[in-house]
Amino acid sequence: MSSDHHRVHTSVPDTTAAIDRSLPEFPAAKPIDEDNYFRLHKPPQYLSQISRDVADFINFHHQARRKIVLVTSGGTTVPLENNTVRFIDNFSAGTRGATSAEYFLENGYAVVFLHREFSLLPYSRHYSHTTNCFLDYMTESQNGKVEVNAEFQKEMLVVLRKYRHAQKNNLLLLVPFTTVHQYLFTLKLIAQELSVIGSDALFFLAAAVSDFFLPSSRVPEHKIQSQESGGKLVVDLEPVPKFLSRLVDSWAPISMIVSFKLETDNSILIKKSKGALERYNHQLVIGNLLQSRKREVVFVTKDSDRWVKLTSDQIEANVDIESLIVPEVIKLHASSIEEKRKVGL
Amino acid sequence: MSSDHHRVHTSVPDTTAAIDRSLPEFPAAKPIDEDNYFRLHKPPQYLSQISRDVADFINFHHQARRKIVLVTSGGTTVPLENNTVRFIDNFSAGTRGATSAEYFLENGYAVVFLHREFSLLPYSRHYSHTTNCFLDYMTESQNGKVEVNAEFQKEMLVVLRKYRHAQKNNLLLLVPFTTVHQYLFTLKLIAQELSVIGSDALFFLAAAVSDFFLPSSRVPEHKIQSQESGGKLVVDLEPVPKFLSRLVDSWAPISMIVSFKLETDNSILIKKSKGALERYNHQLVIGNLLQSRKREVVFVTKDSDRWVKLTSDQIEANVDIESLIVPEVIKLHASSIEEKRKVGL
Repeated sequence: MSSDHHRVHTSVPDTTAAIDRSLPEFPAAKPIDEDNYFRLHKPPQYLSQISRDVADFINFHHQARRKIVLVTSGGTTVPLENNTVRFIDNFSAGTRGATSAEYFLENGYAVVFLHREFSLLPYSRHYSHTTNCFLDYMTESQNGKVEVNAEFQKEMLVVLRKYRHAQKNNLLLLVPFTTVHQYLFTLKLIAQELSVIGSDALFFLAAAVSDFFLPSSRVPEHKIQSQESGGKLVVDLEPVPKFLSRLVDSWAPISMIVSFKLETDNSILIKKSKGALERYNHQLVIGNLLQSRKREVVFVTKDSDRWVKLTSDQIEANVDIESLIVPEVIKLHASSIEEKRKVGL
Repeated sequence: MSSDHHRVHTSVPDTTAAIDRSLPEFPAAKPIDEDNYFRLHKPPQYLSQISRDVADFINFHHQARRKIVLVTSGGTTVPLENNTVRFIDNFSAGTRGATSAEYFLENGYAVVFLHREFSLLPYSRHYSHTTNCFLDYMTESQNGKVEVNAEFQKEMLVVLRKYRHAQKNNLLLLVPFTTVHQYLFTLKLIAQELSVIGSDALFFLAAAVSDFFLPSSRVPEHKIQSQESGGKLVVDLEPVPKFLSRLVDSWAPISMIVSFKLETDNSILIKKSKGALERYNHQLVIGNLLQSRKREVVFVTKDSDRWVKLTSDQIEANVDIESLIVPEVIKLHASSIEEKRKVGL
């Protein structure tokens, strides 16, 4: 409760040694990988409900001729048992996704926010996962009423108005996931629904998706096995098929797709980003380094790479880098729509 | 944003298949296991700061002759790399720990709350991890002020007053952890500091601690290894030494220690709880089933087992089972203090 203890943070990743550099770049998934994956794994039970909600949302905004962005956010988990008590997690608080969603909303997009449950959400992110507890914003007035502290009033009013605006106009659809299976089934579903609006759809894939998973045929009903000898535990995982290529080729072939590449070594960031572009044949990779991702990113396309950076004044003023990233992405989306219209798509 | 989507929860564990039943019961840790573990692993860098805070807190309450409880809460992670981007997690929202801490505070205890960072906290838990966003409690008044909605006023005032009381009187010390290493180093530190107040200290160990870990000698600097063949990933884990015995024997031998046993099969719950009591030689195991843990628990001691259950009226009225558990534990703690005084401890 004393502010002292808030100085200790136990979950900060070590930026000098955080990215798995020697993993091979897995090949892009093929139709057969897709067939196998979606045939061998059960869809989440709630998927039909999400399907209905997504269809209604897309239909509503399509009639209003509003562009729609799918923002993915947060890390996926890989359950090691037929439950979610023990799992492998890819850490991501969801800051990039939640913040970007706000700027898409401010720029007139409707947003489907496909997010890890309990990761940061647009607007409420300003009051979650912080060192401040919700109750620290509150005070008891002389007549026994709970009030928002005067010092937080101004900022909170701005956030609250934007939140209510999005809510009132049905501009934000929250769709949760936890496991990598849930993520992939839901991504495919939403992509296929969005393909209806073609080039007006934008995919902004900021989620941290697991590289490995335990095929359901190998997930034991009650437990992970311990080796007979010495009580060791051996977990044997398969690579997750790289479905980005399926998104580009088949699920939503006319939409613009943006993916992210997170590295720690500046000297290979652009090369790796170009590699992803070539492998998946999509429009834009936004490269970023773990240590500087809140200050600068690089836009990598087939024929250019261009840094987008906060100025030192902007850093001082706590400007979100997403307030620069999102308008740039929107410009590229507009060009992409224009080009596709020219060829009749 | 529409309430519809809040009906979908993606992270609910499957209570019919959630506990790892066939794992062997690992033996209690011996002094040599303790030596090896704490010698071979580096303590968290921030530990000296926590040590100072904990010592000040204990000293403050010792002078006031106030009893102190250490409540542990949330699940530990096992990093698979030298960073926390990819890790194995033991899921626990921290409801039991955060709620129990509130009732200890209401019953006059000072509380050291050793919790997984971003898991539920006492008091703020009422407004976190819920389907409601923080901003849903707020409304804009006619004169452009952010206000707490009238319907939430009464309940929030009760919570705010308790929170401010604990804060003002320095009754709650928040200490975070994320990894199992951080948890074990911090637990040992706090136990040794608490041993100063002897039988006035109570350990209420509600955290879900990982069974397995990756020894730091085997954690690669940059990554987990992928097998050459087929891009598989094999993770090879060791059992975490069962340090509860060291807590009882050496770190805080005069204090009362309460641990939890979570199962899914009612027929073995009491047997397993008795087994833990015999193995570690502590005072109380609180057994609970995943499917009914919010309605009933069983107090297992060397010579008795006794269920503590909410009545159907209490369930209807959303009474916390912790409001029954904590006073019962406090009674046992009082008897334990009495007994130890008789023998001069």
